[in-house]
Amino acid sequence: MPLCGKITIVGLGLIGGSVGLAARRRRLAARVVGLVRRRESVREAARLGVADEATLDPAAALRGADVVILAVPVGSIAGVAALVRPHLAPRCLVTDAASVKRPVVARLERAFPGGAHFVGAHPIAGSERSGMAAARPDLFEGSVCIITPTPRTDRGALRSAQAFWEGLGARVVRMSPVRHDRIMAAVSHLPHLVAAALVNSVAGGLGCGSPALGFAGTGFRDTTRIAAGPPAMWSEILIANRGHILRAARSFRRELDRVVSMLEEADGAGLDRRLGRAAAARRRVRCANHGCEDNRPVADER
Amino acid sequence: MPLCGKITIVGLGLIGGSVGLAARRRRLAARVVGLVRRRESVREAARLGVADEATLDPAAALRGADVVILAVPVGSIAGVAALVRPHLAPRCLVTDAASVKRPVVARLERAFPGGAHFVGAHPIAGSERSGMAAARPDLFEGSVCIITPTPRTDRGALRSAQAFWEGLGARVVRMSPVRHDRIMAAVSHLPHLVAAALVNSVAGGLGCGSPALGFAGTGFRDTTRIAAGPPAMWSEILIANRGHILRAARSFRRELDRVVSMLEEADGAGLDRRLGRAAAARRRVRCANHGCEDNRPVADER
Repeated sequence: MPLCGKITIVGLGLIGGSVGLAARRRRLAARVVGLVRRRESVREAARLGVADEATLDPAAALRGADVVILAVPVGSIAGVAALVRPHLAPRCLVTDAASVKRPVVARLERAFPGGAHFVGAHPIAGSERSGMAAARPDLFEGSVCIITPTPRTDRGALRSAQAFWEGLGARVVRMSPVRHDRIMAAVSHLPHLVAAALVNSVAGGLGCGSPALGFAGTGFRDTTRIAAGPPAMWSEILIANRGHILRAARSFRRELDRVVSMLEEADGAGLDRRLGRAAAARRRVRCANHGCEDNRPVADER
Repeated sequence: MPLCGKITIVGLGLIGGSVGLAARRRRLAARVVGLVRRRESVREAARLGVADEATLDPAAALRGADVVILAVPVGSIAGVAALVRPHLAPRCLVTDAASVKRPVVARLERAFPGGAHFVGAHPIAGSERSGMAAARPDLFEGSVCIITPTPRTDRGALRSAQAFWEGLGARVVRMSPVRHDRIMAAVSHLPHLVAAALVNSVAGGLGCGSPALGFAGTGFRDTTRIAAGPPAMWSEILIANRGHILRAARSFRRELDRVVSMLEEADGAGLDRRLGRAAAARRRVRCANHGCEDNRPVADER
C-alpha cells in the first residue's frame, strides 16, 4: 500500500534521482513527480525512470503533493523554498537532504511557518559521483538517515518524515541540527578539505599531470577519492558549516604538527604509538553508508 | 618452463606469502622455499600453500637458491641481510620489496658486495591488511613494481630481477632510489601520516569509540582506510624516508593553511577554485595498484 498519493522531488541529481528510483520501486506513492530547471533534465528523467513525470512547472509539480523533498545544493535551498512555498498543499510534509543542518533548518523553518510542515533530514549516502545519471534505487538501503527535529517541529510531521526515509530503505536516527553539524564537520567535511589539500599539495609538488602520480597505489586513491566530488556543492557545504569545521581543522592541525615533530626528531617509538592509536580507532569505526562491508546498526542518538 | 630452479622467500607476510603463491601458481621455479622465524609460521605456510616448504633454518632455505627475496619490514632488512649472506650461492640474485629504497639499497649493496647480486625492488601492492593470511596469488597482477638500479647494479642481475617481477604479473618500471623515495613520500607515506592524524583528531574530538563515529560515511572510511595498517611497519617506513616526507608535509601544511584561511574568511569563490583544482587533478590520477578500476599502463621512468 502506498505511503501517500504524491511525492514531489525538487532537484533530480544523485540524491533526488535516487529518491525517485527508490520511491517508485518501493511503491511509496501513487505518483512520483520531479521538478527540474532544465528541459534536458525532463528528457533524462523520462529516460532513466527516476520519476513518473518531470516538469519545469512548479505549480503542476507541487499541486496536491503529500511529501515534498528539496534535493538541491545547500546554497540553492533557500531560493528553492521560496519558489516552492506558494504551491504547497496545507499539511504537506517538506523534507530535505542537505548535509549541513543548523543554518538550513533555521532558514526552512522560517520559510514554512505554518500550513506545510518542515522536517530536516540528511541521508548519509552518496559518492564522489554526482548528477542524475549516478542515481541508484538502492542508494539508501542499509544507510543511515539523520533527521533533525527542533522544538518547532510538528510531531505528526516528524513521524511522517521518519516513515518516508525508512520507506526508502534508510535507518533513521534523530538528533539536533547542531549535533549533526558538529559530527559531520569531523567525519565528512574536514576529511573533504584534507583530501583536497592533499591532492593539491601532491599534484603541485610532483607536477600536476606528472607521470609520477601514476605510481599512486590504492592508499592514495582511497585517501583522496572524495576530493573528486563536485567543487561548487562542496564549497557551499564547507562555508555553511565553517564554525564546526574550523574547530575540527585546528584539532587536526595540532595532531599533524605532533606527528611531524616526531618525524623531525626521528622519534620512532612516539610515532609508533600515534599510528597504533589511529589504527585501533580506525578499526573500531563502523560505516553508516550503503555498501559498506562493515555496516552495523547505530544506536539512536538524541 | 620455470625461470629458475629455486626461489627462497625470506619472510612470509602479505608480500612474501603473495610472492610464494604467485611463484607456485605461475611455476616460476622448480621449488619455492620460505625462511621464517617462528615455528607456527612453518605450519601456517604449509596450510596456506605459500611455499613448497618453509623452514627456520637459513642454511637449508638458502642452499642453491637462484633468487632470494627479502620480504621483511624496513627496520629488519639489514639484520636479515647479514643472516642470509653466508648461505648465498655465487651469482644468486637478491631482491627485496621495501617501500623505501635509498637507505635500503645503500645498506644492501654494502651487504652483498660481490658474489650475490642485489637489485632493489618495490612492488606497489598491498593493503591495510598484513600477515600471511592476507596473501593472494594475484596481488601483483596488473600492479606496478618499481626496480631501482644504481651505477653498481649488475646488468645481468637487473634483467633477471625484471624477469622475476614480471613473472609474478607486475609491470616493471625502473627509476633511481632517490626518485622512488621522493614519489612515494608524496603518494604513499604522507597520505598515511595524514590519514592517521585525521583519525586521531576526529576520534579524540568526538571521543574515541563514540557512537558519533558511527555516522562516518564512505568518505571518512576511504580517507582513513590506510590508517588501519600495521603501526610498527609504517613508523619504520616513515622514519626511513623522513627527509622527503617532511618536505611533502610542509607543502601539505601550506595548502591546508591556505584553504583554512579561505574558510575563516568565508571566501566561497576561493575555496571553490581550490576544490576545483583538486577535483580535476584527482580525476587525472591513475592507480598503479592491482584491482584498481582505472588501471592504465604507466610510461617507463628513469
